[in-house]
Amino acid sequence: MEIIVAKTAGFCFGVKRAVDMAFKTAKKKQKGVFTFGPIIHNPQVIEKLKEEGILPTEDINTHEIKDIIIRTHGVSFQIMNRISDAGFNIIDATCPFVKKAQRYAKLLREDGYQVIILGEREHPEVQGIMSYAGDDVIVVAAESALPKIKHDVGIIVQTTQPVEALKKLFGKVIEQAKNVKVYNTICNSTALRLKETAAMAKKADIMLVVGGKNSANTTQLAKLCQSLSVPTHHIETAAELRAEWFNGIKKVGITAGASTPDWIIEDIIKKLKVYDS
Amino acid sequence: MEIIVAKTAGFCFGVKRAVDMAFKTAKKKQKGVFTFGPIIHNPQVIEKLKEEGILPTEDINTHEIKDIIIRTHGVSFQIMNRISDAGFNIIDATCPFVKKAQRYAKLLREDGYQVIILGEREHPEVQGIMSYAGDDVIVVAAESALPKIKHDVGIIVQTTQPVEALKKLFGKVIEQAKNVKVYNTICNSTALRLKETAAMAKKADIMLVVGGKNSANTTQLAKLCQSLSVPTHHIETAAELRAEWFNGIKKVGITAGASTPDWIIEDIIKKLKVYDS
Repeated sequence: MEIIVAKTAGFCFGVKRAVDMAFKTAKKKQKGVFTFGPIIHNPQVIEKLKEEGILPTEDINTHEIKDIIIRTHGVSFQIMNRISDAGFNIIDATCPFVKKAQRYAKLLREDGYQVIILGEREHPEVQGIMSYAGDDVIVVAAESALPKIKHDVGIIVQTTQPVEALKKLFGKVIEQAKNVKVYNTICNSTALRLKETAAMAKKADIMLVVGGKNSANTTQLAKLCQSLSVPTHHIETAAELRAEWFNGIKKVGITAGASTPDWIIEDIIKKLKVYDS
Repeated sequence: MEIIVAKTAGFCFGVKRAVDMAFKTAKKKQKGVFTFGPIIHNPQVIEKLKEEGILPTEDINTHEIKDIIIRTHGVSFQIMNRISDAGFNIIDATCPFVKKAQRYAKLLREDGYQVIILGEREHPEVQGIMSYAGDDVIVVAAESALPKIKHDVGIIVQTTQPVEALKKLFGKVIEQAKNVKVYNTICNSTALRLKETAAMAKKADIMLVVGGKNSANTTQLAKLCQSLSVPTHHIETAAELRAEWFNGIKKVGITAGASTPDWIIEDIIKKLKVYDS
C-alpha cells in the first residue's frame, strides 16, 4: 500500500506562530495564563496546552487572568477593548492574514462601502472581521442566496475559503451592485493546500483528511475530496482509523488542515504501516 | 406568421441624445459642421446626416471645420485636446455612460491601480477609455487569455458587453490579483436588451437582428441568438431580407441594436407582412 502525504499538510504560518507563542509562554511557568477561546481549532493541541497549564476561556470575568493569548482566528474589537480595559497582559496570536482582513473591513467601512464577508457566520474569524465591517455588514456562504445589497459594495473573504466560492459570490454581487471592491484575503497556503489536495484526490484510492472537526479549512478539504468522488474520511487522530477501510486499497492520500500538528500525521502513518505489514 | 418585436429594440438613451443633437445642429443650416468619426454605428443614419450636410471625418486638418460633433462612443483625451486647441466649436455627443467609464478609468489610474478594460481593443469607445487609463492598461475580450497583471487591479467594462463576460474576466483576474476594484460600466439598456433578446430567441423560429454590421452591441445580440441555436440573420435594412428564410416559419423575432433607427425596423415589418400575404 502506497502512502502519499501532501507537502502542504499541517501547520500554516499563522498557526505555527500562534502555537509557538503559546508554548513559549507556557515555558515561563507563570500562573494565570489563558487563551481567549481555543487558540487553534485542534482539540489535541488544546489538550497539550492544558497539560502545560494554559486553559482556553471566553469568560474573562470569572478567572484570575494575568496573561491572555488571543487565538489565531482573532476576536472582535469589542472583545479586544474589554480585555484591554481589564488590564490583562495581551499576547496577540491573531494570524497576521486575519488581522489584514480585519483592517480591510474597517477601511471599506470608512470608505462608505457596504461590506460583504464570504464565509461562515458562526466562525470566530468571521465574527472578528464582522465587528470591523459596520452595521450593514452581510455574511454569506458561497451556496447561499444574496440578500438585497447596496450600490457600492466591498468584499472580504474568510482566509480559508476556496477561490471558486469568491468567483461565485462575485457573479451574484455584480448582478446588483455597480461598484465592487474585492480584497482577496484568502490565505495563499489555503489555496495551495486545496490545489494539492485536489490533485492528490484524483490519484488516490482513499483520502484521509486529518484535523479538528471544528476546523473550517480541514472540513473544506474533506468536502473537496468528497466532491471528487474518492472515498474520504475526516479524522482527528489515528484512533479513528479502521483497518477495513484499506481492504484492496493500493494508494492512500493523506492531507491535513492548517491546524493539524505533525505528530498526529506521523501517528497515522505508523498505524497504516502496521495494517500493511 | 407571427411577428414579435423586442420592446428594447432600437435607440438607447445615449444614441437618441446624440442623433437629436446632430439633427438639431443640421436644422441651423450652417456650413462646416462635421462629426468626429461616425456619430453612431449605423450607416443609414450617417447617410441621412450627409444629406443634411453633416459629414463624418477623423481628419480635422483638411476640412474647413467650424462645429465638430463628438461621436456617441467618445474620443481619446488626446483627440479632445487637439480639437480644443484647433479652436472648433465642440458639440459633445459622447454618451454620458461612456463619459462615466472614461472618468472611472482616470480615477483608477490616479489611485494607482492597473486598469483592465473588458472589450474590443479596436472599438472607438474602448480607444477613448484607454487613453484615460494609463500606460500599463490592458484590454481583453472575454474569451482571451489574461496576460500577467499587477497586485492592484481596476476593471472597467465597454458599455455594450454582456455581464457574463465580466464574471468570466473576474474569475481570471482573481487568480492573479489580490485587490480588485470593479466599476460595472455595462449600460443597463444593453443588459435589458440582451435579456429580452435571449428570452425571445428561445420562443422564435427565426431571429432577425437589425443594425449596423459595425455596431458592437448589435453583433453581440446576433452572437447571443446564434449561441441559442435559433436561425439568425444580422441585417442592416429590409433590402437584405430573403423570402425563402420564412418558409414554414410560424414566429419571427425581431430585435435591434442601440443604434438602429425605428424606421428601419418598421420597413422590415412591412416587408415581412408582404411575404405573409
